[in-house]
Amino acid sequence: MSRARTDAEQVEVVNTAFYEAVERGDFEELSAIWLDDEISCVHPGWPVLSGRGEVLRSYALIMANTEYIQFFLTDVKVTVLGDTALVVCTENTLSGGPAEEAGELGPLVGQLIVATNVFRRTEDGWKLWSHHGSPVLAENGEEEDDETPA
Amino acid sequence: MSRARTDAEQVEVVNTAFYEAVERGDFEELSAIWLDDEISCVHPGWPVLSGRGEVLRSYALIMANTEYIQFFLTDVKVTVLGDTALVVCTENTLSGGPAEEAGELGPLVGQLIVATNVFRRTEDGWKLWSHHGSPVLAENGEEEDDETPA
Repeated sequence: MSRARTDAEQVEVVNTAFYEAVERGDFEELSAIWLDDEISCVHPGWPVLSGRGEVLRSYALIMANTEYIQFFLTDVKVTVLGDTALVVCTENTLSGGPAEEAGELGPLVGQLIVATNVFRRTEDGWKLWSHHGSPVLAENGEEEDDETPA
Repeated sequence: MSRARTDAEQVEVVNTAFYEAVERGDFEELSAIWLDDEISCVHPGWPVLSGRGEVLRSYALIMANTEYIQFFLTDVKVTVLGDTALVVCTENTLSGGPAEEAGELGPLVGQLIVATNVFRRTEDGWKLWSHHGSPVLAENGEEEDDETPA
């Protein structure tokens, strides 16, 4: 008998599905995860994109220019207040652009990105309302005990 | 007779007050704007900070190291769903560190930052639940008609 999932667990499942859809380049799945209402999205280093048209076009563009991308999520923290869930997580990404020669994979690049994802409870499950990802440019080092070796 | 403010207008007032508190270095006002619950904050280029302790300490640190900061907010967009409000805006900041010589202002630096701010409705007004600011590193140029001159 399976135990009913808590709100936070449900949200984490959708948060993971969001990144997996990008990894697979599954545009349909990704579209279904975003809310129908006014959504907003900030890709690392980008200005704000607003509305489904702008946001989904950006993913189509990113998917077309990304041969390979993988997210290793760490420090995932879910907070649910009423019908809204806030997820902060660190995206350790490994990605590669299209190869210059056919059949080859472009050079892989690792990036450390932090994301704030806001989800809304709907009749159709939790849906993504806002995604904001940004590059970690400097260690502030205050609370980090597990520093990566230099 | 003053017209009652809509939710979105109330949220925008608090959003503006948040930036003004940072401009004035008003730590008490800033503390009062943040929610009591589990908050999170990402400063441009920083990792995630969680909880009032970490978040407010970071502002104390920033205020101590900032002689002058001014925010010119543009493209402010407020969306309210139930008891949560999502604000995206562009922070055109102008800031200066402490002067090297007493009585002088440090060099001023302009920065283009985009922010996603999440507010919760409380009995005490709208409170900040999450702030995520990130530097705009590249123009994607898709929808921008009003490009700044080079």
